[in-house]
Amino acid sequence: MSKGELIIPQDFPVLQNDTFLKAARGEEGHHVPVWCMRQAGRYLPEFREFRAGKDFFETCRSPEACCELTLQPLRRFAFDAAIIFSDILVVPQAMGMDVQMVAGKGPTFPEPLKEPEDLQRLRSKVDVDKELGYVFRAITLTRHKIQGKVPLIGFTGAPWTLMSYMIEGGGSSTHSKAKRWLYQHPEASHMLLKMLTDVIVEYLLGQVAAGAQALQVFESHAGILGPLQFQEFSLPYLDDIARRVKERFKETQQEVPMIVFAKDAHYALEALSQSHYQVVGLDWTIDPRSARDRTAGKVSVQGNMDPCALYAPKECISDTVRTMLEGFGTRGYIANLGHGLYPDMDPEHVGAFVEAVHRHSKLMIKQK
Amino acid sequence: MSKGELIIPQDFPVLQNDTFLKAARGEEGHHVPVWCMRQAGRYLPEFREFRAGKDFFETCRSPEACCELTLQPLRRFAFDAAIIFSDILVVPQAMGMDVQMVAGKGPTFPEPLKEPEDLQRLRSKVDVDKELGYVFRAITLTRHKIQGKVPLIGFTGAPWTLMSYMIEGGGSSTHSKAKRWLYQHPEASHMLLKMLTDVIVEYLLGQVAAGAQALQVFESHAGILGPLQFQEFSLPYLDDIARRVKERFKETQQEVPMIVFAKDAHYALEALSQSHYQVVGLDWTIDPRSARDRTAGKVSVQGNMDPCALYAPKECISDTVRTMLEGFGTRGYIANLGHGLYPDMDPEHVGAFVEAVHRHSKLMIKQK
Repeated sequence: MSKGELIIPQDFPVLQNDTFLKAARGEEGHHVPVWCMRQAGRYLPEFREFRAGKDFFETCRSPEACCELTLQPLRRFAFDAAIIFSDILVVPQAMGMDVQMVAGKGPTFPEPLKEPEDLQRLRSKVDVDKELGYVFRAITLTRHKIQGKVPLIGFTGAPWTLMSYMIEGGGSSTHSKAKRWLYQHPEASHMLLKMLTDVIVEYLLGQVAAGAQALQVFESHAGILGPLQFQEFSLPYLDDIARRVKERFKETQQEVPMIVFAKDAHYALEALSQSHYQVVGLDWTIDPRSARDRTAGKVSVQGNMDPCALYAPKECISDTVRTMLEGFGTRGYIANLGHGLYPDMDPEHVGAFVEAVHRHSKLMIKQK
Repeated sequence: MSKGELIIPQDFPVLQNDTFLKAARGEEGHHVPVWCMRQAGRYLPEFREFRAGKDFFETCRSPEACCELTLQPLRRFAFDAAIIFSDILVVPQAMGMDVQMVAGKGPTFPEPLKEPEDLQRLRSKVDVDKELGYVFRAITLTRHKIQGKVPLIGFTGAPWTLMSYMIEGGGSSTHSKAKRWLYQHPEASHMLLKMLTDVIVEYLLGQVAAGAQALQVFESHAGILGPLQFQEFSLPYLDDIARRVKERFKETQQEVPMIVFAKDAHYALEALSQSHYQVVGLDWTIDPRSARDRTAGKVSVQGNMDPCALYAPKECISDTVRTMLEGFGTRGYIANLGHGLYPDMDPEHVGAFVEAVHRHSKLMIKQK
């Protein structure tokens, strides 16, 4: 295939491994599918080597670089899905905000939103093809280059999580500046969340048009909201995103599973299982059996081994995986961690995790 | 009373407001008692003025300074309890570790524990009177100076929370170094947790002997553990502390309520309500009615308004408080925030919170 054909979002290679998509639909394959959040990440020496000396968001803007980084973990491990290498903060950038990745500090907004008036600094209409076309091109290129080995997941940050970054200006343990907005400026907060939702919907649709075969929405800062604020400032937007994206799928007769991962929102499990998502991602503080009880078969689930369990000796990883599989069962279940991989993790232990999910689940399905 | 008498832990003034102690015992007074975690803190201008230019742990080591800081919020607000001004990290200091408070960074251990061998650097036997006598003297002095207005609460960090600080060397978003220990060095972890438990038991008994009328154990880093690790590395030590302290109370026929606050341990609510604590503290992610259902009347509860709700206009605070009171009910309930006060909070809004708890609860109790 010529270079030109690799950037056209059609004639993709036939998918060979549909275990992930089956599980997202609530079905069972011959093994439980597994992938890891942040599987394209700093724990891989080839990732560190490839990224060395390059600006983080420059990398995000290069389809070739994103493609290479997305494919790296697939060369090592038998993951059942790939997730496009990118960052949730490309959306605030598309809306006109400056975001830098500062070494040792993480993402930083030199000029965060301080007052409701600052919303005027944001683009009211975002041309996603123009501002985020580089992500779409990365997805198309990667979908071709994966050669149908596994499906490719696209993703976005959820409105509240992006809003909290835009106001805090970076990481925070309390997110108290962003939460102050919710309490002092509820109307402006809803306005911002609505603006973000509109961009996110177009962004996700663009990803699917470019070749994404599943979509994950990260509400990484859900846990900092209590049940009341989640109900008001997170859930309606999460649900609206899935509803609107799926409505547009109907028109084109596409079927792209959507996953919601609201980290630490233990209190919202029932509500999320009744939303428009097919899959609910779980952090490691949720007991697998209790998750199945509380979601009552309404959704597939994804997660949730404590990422730090990868620090344990390999034989312990196998035991932890078996216990997790027994808790979740093998149908409508996508194995993953309860959070992303950390940079100091041993790739061999990641391999042991993947291998254990496949080995134990095959046996469990066979013995049924 | 002469200065000499103020340091002797006897002949304390008679307690005039026992609403807090009643609620801890599961009873109901004529209003719901209220206090705030970190009520002696930087949100008060008089606190900032008093502390200005002084080293944090020097302040902790001065009984007179701790007494003054503990009393400051009582001069402004009708709190129903005071908590001694101190810090949970005085325990690692007593065990021989250096801890500095670094401006803009928080508590820092220049030489954190790195390997199990480092446990040898810790004092195996801690003479709590010698190492932590300054806290006991602060408690005695403050108990006298409070003049029986409200009861005085003593406190400690819980073993896992202290262990995680001792290994991380300071704050952390993942606590992955400390969690790595749990997975790689479970035996050494249990050894350290046991050492901490032994010191904490003596420390709490010393606080009661010095005049503390209630005790709170802060497991601030509970949420970073999943249910399995909490079960193994936190709960047994929390329970052991309460059991051993209460056993010694029996000998002296004392009755001092013990409160456990395991932040973000939503998954452990049932277990904590069946432990040896009389009161379970709740963070703001727990719905009040669900907390009452899950604790099934076995314990009193304390909490749990989102601290950021204090950013809201005063009339909203009153509404939030009423909803919270309706959720928890007025019996066996101590109103508080779900986390400590933040430095940028308005003292007037703290006053509005206290006033709203008293006003609404009096009305609710009357209308019963």
